[in-house]
Amino acid sequence: MGKVRNILFIMCDQLRWDYLSCAGHPRLGTPHIDRLAARGVRFSNAFVQAPVCGPSRMSYYTGRYVASHGAVWNFVPLPVGELTLGDYLRPRGLRVAVAGKTHMAEDAAGMKRLGLSPASGRGALIAEGGFEPFDRDDGVHPAGWHEPESRYFSYLRAHGYDSANPWQDFANSAAASDGSVLSGWHMRHANLPARVKEEHSETAYMTDRAIEFIAAQGEQPWCLHLSYIKPHWPYMAPAPYHDMYGPDDVLPARRSSAELRDPHPVYAAFTRHPESVNFAKDDIRGTVVPAYMGLIKQVDDHLGRLLGLLDRSGRMADTLIVFCSDHGDYLGDHHLGEKELFHDTVAKVPLIIVDPDAAADGTRGTTEQRLVEAIDVLPTLLDAVEVAIPDHIVEGRSLLPLTRGGKIASWRDAVFSEFDYSFRRATREHLGRPVDGCRMFMRRSERWKYIVAEGFRPQLFDLVADPDEFVDLGAEPAFAATRAELDGQLFAWLRGRKMRVTTTNDFVTGWTTRSEAAGIKIGLW
Amino acid sequence: MGKVRNILFIMCDQLRWDYLSCAGHPRLGTPHIDRLAARGVRFSNAFVQAPVCGPSRMSYYTGRYVASHGAVWNFVPLPVGELTLGDYLRPRGLRVAVAGKTHMAEDAAGMKRLGLSPASGRGALIAEGGFEPFDRDDGVHPAGWHEPESRYFSYLRAHGYDSANPWQDFANSAAASDGSVLSGWHMRHANLPARVKEEHSETAYMTDRAIEFIAAQGEQPWCLHLSYIKPHWPYMAPAPYHDMYGPDDVLPARRSSAELRDPHPVYAAFTRHPESVNFAKDDIRGTVVPAYMGLIKQVDDHLGRLLGLLDRSGRMADTLIVFCSDHGDYLGDHHLGEKELFHDTVAKVPLIIVDPDAAADGTRGTTEQRLVEAIDVLPTLLDAVEVAIPDHIVEGRSLLPLTRGGKIASWRDAVFSEFDYSFRRATREHLGRPVDGCRMFMRRSERWKYIVAEGFRPQLFDLVADPDEFVDLGAEPAFAATRAELDGQLFAWLRGRKMRVTTTNDFVTGWTTRSEAAGIKIGLW
Repeated sequence: MGKVRNILFIMCDQLRWDYLSCAGHPRLGTPHIDRLAARGVRFSNAFVQAPVCGPSRMSYYTGRYVASHGAVWNFVPLPVGELTLGDYLRPRGLRVAVAGKTHMAEDAAGMKRLGLSPASGRGALIAEGGFEPFDRDDGVHPAGWHEPESRYFSYLRAHGYDSANPWQDFANSAAASDGSVLSGWHMRHANLPARVKEEHSETAYMTDRAIEFIAAQGEQPWCLHLSYIKPHWPYMAPAPYHDMYGPDDVLPARRSSAELRDPHPVYAAFTRHPESVNFAKDDIRGTVVPAYMGLIKQVDDHLGRLLGLLDRSGRMADTLIVFCSDHGDYLGDHHLGEKELFHDTVAKVPLIIVDPDAAADGTRGTTEQRLVEAIDVLPTLLDAVEVAIPDHIVEGRSLLPLTRGGKIASWRDAVFSEFDYSFRRATREHLGRPVDGCRMFMRRSERWKYIVAEGFRPQLFDLVADPDEFVDLGAEPAFAATRAELDGQLFAWLRGRKMRVTTTNDFVTGWTTRSEAAGIKIGLW
Repeated sequence: MGKVRNILFIMCDQLRWDYLSCAGHPRLGTPHIDRLAARGVRFSNAFVQAPVCGPSRMSYYTGRYVASHGAVWNFVPLPVGELTLGDYLRPRGLRVAVAGKTHMAEDAAGMKRLGLSPASGRGALIAEGGFEPFDRDDGVHPAGWHEPESRYFSYLRAHGYDSANPWQDFANSAAASDGSVLSGWHMRHANLPARVKEEHSETAYMTDRAIEFIAAQGEQPWCLHLSYIKPHWPYMAPAPYHDMYGPDDVLPARRSSAELRDPHPVYAAFTRHPESVNFAKDDIRGTVVPAYMGLIKQVDDHLGRLLGLLDRSGRMADTLIVFCSDHGDYLGDHHLGEKELFHDTVAKVPLIIVDPDAAADGTRGTTEQRLVEAIDVLPTLLDAVEVAIPDHIVEGRSLLPLTRGGKIASWRDAVFSEFDYSFRRATREHLGRPVDGCRMFMRRSERWKYIVAEGFRPQLFDLVADPDEFVDLGAEPAFAATRAELDGQLFAWLRGRKMRVTTTNDFVTGWTTRSEAAGIKIGLW
């Protein structure tokens, strides 16, 4: 192992923290991801800044909380002025590219105002959240909303999948035994194979692309964001992964009837969503969860292929690897489907960092239990290639002191996550909330999870007494003082966001000296 | 009077709300400003978003709180992505320019990243906070820190004031009776005349420039920000304004020994500043306050000249006029000098709006007591020329329903102001605070002023029982419940900032329909 020259930043979409064998899943073997954990550090308390794709990713890419970068939900463009990984790493000589999903939306109005064309080199990078779009593909291409220029479309057509939208008609459709075509949008088909061969499926394709990128780079340093869109829905796996697991492999849903007694209004509204109603049924779970597991198994197998290449080419010795997810998937836990609330099922994610530096040899194969956040990834990557972390902008902190066993004076005692359900019309209207009044904020410490939702009482869970988060203490009189204290800490966090992004701390501390030298004299008699 | 075509946005610097005869000052006659009040609406409870120039102005120019625009103190650049008045008014056909001070600092790093040159037309506007710099002059040009290209420098030299820095040597120096030169930086010289003729002083010059701009516009619509740097220090007035008032005209300082008993640490630290120590002395007040009054009187006289021109040219009938200030000046009140804390002396400002529309005839000459904020000015100006107010970005609200006596369903019950003392090294070090931990937040309702300063107990004033703000209830056990309630309201305000600036409310409310039409089906069995 050696000094970090390259970065492989792997993200899965909607992968739960506990659906890996290294995290304890008893039926789902993920030996290649486990191998990463054995070579690096597995963070068993890693949390995302938002329980939904877009804002969570923008926090990974900026190192900043959602309240700071402002992309509060999917399809909300990251403001043109926000700096991303590419801004920091490219001047250091790394080629910074993406293969797969970012969920970045272009700030078209902001770019137009500043005269930036998405067709220009600089404009294209800004529009892509700082990633060179080596093969940008957000992976969901419904009939009425696909990107006509998707490279994956062309690839599928070149391999004989003849369709205007081969993703919809092949990758996301099932082949019934009688040969008829069944839409992957219906979860009842999750136990059927996709109409693409495994080698042509999205996970296989994007791994091929990553291998191609890395090989082409040769000795030139790079940062590749390999961003799988799986195991995100539609839950449609190619053979043989579609029936590698069965209902017997499905763990029981982690839910309790206690959760439905006097529930918090926002939580209650989410239990009414179609995906929640469906995932409450055991036969549906028995059909869908095996497909979800198969999609994870497929990712693991392809990562094995990629890691083998890194081993053989020597890249394992100079490449820092991050493996993570943008959020989890309820799969029926807490009487919910999908994501978007703050239970650990969703807000907690897998995070493994393999640091090739010899200084990290002492931590290989260990599990780190301290609280870490998605915003820590960006400063970790900067730190790894010796780029100074701009502490007036970046809100996360480097994890290298953890991977390298450095002295750590103090660590954070809580993590934060945010959500805005305003885009979900039925939920917003059911709750009677204005479009500007649907924000939620979570503070989670080792013991307490405290949630504020505008217009409603708070939620509170005691994670020591109730690790499953079944008992909401948000209205219990006995916990009023605890809630008040946590509310104060959440407020203090929000006040402490880094808002002075145009001015360094050094500029601030040096100002008095400069102004005196310039001859400014205030209040002198 | 008629429809609004032009906007005259007049700002004074450091002008207290109560130093106008229309606001009740018994010794300082300001007949021309009073005439504005008689023609329009005077807002007797107008508050700025920061008690110091830079951030207060950026809130005026963006319509957003300081926590939203991020320019937390002077010299902190407004981020390149923040929209300003010019972005909204220029597409409507108005020429948007400044004569005088903005305190805008260029976001050089942000512009460089986006490929914007300050030499380009677009870049120059961004660098100037959206104002065409018709005559940008921030008015303070100490020996070691002046802008060599200041037009006022050339003007002074052309009129015989021969110096490398004629501002420093003439406009800001006094002529002693023996002819020797005395620096205006020393307040002991505030009763002496500046070394420039009145007609060549800054207030006269900038008024000339405004007249020149308006005349040149003819019938073309415009928005001129006429931004006087006076009565801001250095307190140096030209004859005859330097001795128009004397110690007998000076009102007693509004202060109480109660304020110094167990004072809040931040307040106590500010009472130690040199300007506070000096303004605590009555002989110093007797020397300086008359100069401050003279500078206001001079502004009033020149406004008379300008208003006369508007009357004669017919512009009064189609020009909306705003008269305001960026913050007040303690002048010894509360044992303080200068500004930067939240007493009404400083956070409350004069605000007069003359709306020429016939719909406003019913409110002319009235005083409006509702709570308004500096961020309301931008949406008011947009509203006046029928530009839609972007409600996902702008945090203020139009005041036209108040000037035009419209139906108002509900109005705000509090105003907010923010401050960051990190730039003041002595204060920060005396208080032992980190550079990131010097922020303060104020919420003021009709009755309560509640202030949070990081690392210290809160402050609380009961403005009904104690309108002078002499008794800090921030540590009184009897008011714990009041403080808790106000703390919750301050937290709710901070959560409610407009952070989704790249996405309109309409986009949000229309999303469900669009995603369904596109064929996205989540959780369907």
